Amino acid sequence: MSNPSAAIIVIGDEILSGRTRDSNMHFLARALTRAGIDLREARVVADRSGDIVAAVNETRARVDHVFTSGGIGPTHDDITADAIAAAFGVGIGERADALAILAAHYASRGSDFTDARRRMARIPEGARLIENPVSAAPGFSLGNVHVMAGVPSVFEAMVASVLPGITGGRPLLSQTWRILRGEGEIAGELGRLADDYADLSIGSYPFHREGIFGTSVVVRGENGPRVAEAVARLAALYPA
Amino acid sequence: MSNPSAAIIVIGDEILSGRTRDSNMHFLARALTRAGIDLREARVVADRSGDIVAAVNETRARVDHVFTSGGIGPTHDDITADAIAAAFGVGIGERADALAILAAHYASRGSDFTDARRRMARIPEGARLIENPVSAAPGFSLGNVHVMAGVPSVFEAMVASVLPGITGGRPLLSQTWRILRGEGEIAGELGRLADDYADLSIGSYPFHREGIFGTSVVVRGENGPRVAEAVARLAALYPA
Repeated sequence: MSNPSAAIIVIGDEILSGRTRDSNMHFLARALTRAGIDLREARVVADRSGDIVAAVNETRARVDHVFTSGGIGPTHDDITADAIAAAFGVGIGERADALAILAAHYASRGSDFTDARRRMARIPEGARLIENPVSAAPGFSLGNVHVMAGVPSVFEAMVASVLPGITGGRPLLSQTWRILRGEGEIAGELGRLADDYADLSIGSYPFHREGIFGTSVVVRGENGPRVAEAVARLAALYPA
Repeated sequence: MSNPSAAIIVIGDEILSGRTRDSNMHFLARALTRAGIDLREARVVADRSGDIVAAVNETRARVDHVFTSGGIGPTHDDITADAIAAAFGVGIGERADALAILAAHYASRGSDFTDARRRMARIPEGARLIENPVSAAPGFSLGNVHVMAGVPSVFEAMVASVLPGITGGRPLLSQTWRILRGEGEIAGELGRLADDYADLSIGSYPFHREGIFGTSVVVRGENGPRVAEAVARLAALYPA
């Protein structure tokens, strides 16, 4: 049996103009190689609906999995979710579970849940949400297309959420604990936790938004009670 | 009138596997933006003839200029020239001018002009050569497709050769002077030369091959006698 195949579509005018240098393509290329998945093609397309639809439809017919990066934020040029719905010919609307995640996230920070932010709860029909431990706004998978954020720390966290389900391993359970300290301050304790729970995967994702610094720690594993135990230890060390 | 449009196709398994991180896409994106050309799409494809042919034919029909990077070296997996000939439906064969450039280059180093190196003189029919001031083996342009090397220093030098002809400026004349010293040693003199010949573009491209370190200095400009004068000054400072 040959390896599963994949493509990545990086979406964003800022990459094509050279203002930003993409790093997600190279990150994903390495992650897929480690997972035994062949990356067959990579593309960068503009923030234009027709270009996104064409690239998604051409690649999803050819490879087992398509990953996209970028265009799912709150601003007017974030059109990826609509373009994916158009590519699949399905509807798109605000989804209750995504809305609840976003509402809780902004409430926990005392930030306004503006209409612009509310746009990030618009998800194509039939999609499954992808967890975002860094900044809450979820990605989603529809068919064999996995739609993720462009910000590298968020993209990388979403790849960690999606890959295990693709490689045919047992689905991973995950829980996130948010700590209002920098990674450097908690690295020692995280290292000890990783030693004691070597059967789990413990990821740390620094965040900095609106003057709040901190680290989201994501604990992933096949064994639910073990995941809960590790998170309980984190909660005891760093109460909310 | 809208800006000319472009696409880049990066060719190479090593990019898709994540072993190498491509830098040519970002370099070209910035260079095109400065030149007022819109980069519409970027792709990375594998070293597979069918993939290269499909990507070249899809993009060359849609944009004014297609740039490719990679796959024109001496080894068996360097199949770009053949794939471009196939994409255009033209023949390919060893070309006398390319052969002469390569033969002179290896003779000047006392290196063998092996059959593998001779492969780099195979150029599709009807193509125009692109100068390679770093390592001699030329790129080529066929129709609106510009085929360049993957090694970043060579790619960047070839972009400098090709861009002026595309942006509708007068064609640039260029001469190369090869100096067996590092850039650091000659930077002072090069700076004075650039000051005295502000109407010319003076590029320096370090090389290191088979134990020989040095710098190729490329002098480009519209005025042939001025170019020759600047190169004569270099030759007096740094005799061959």
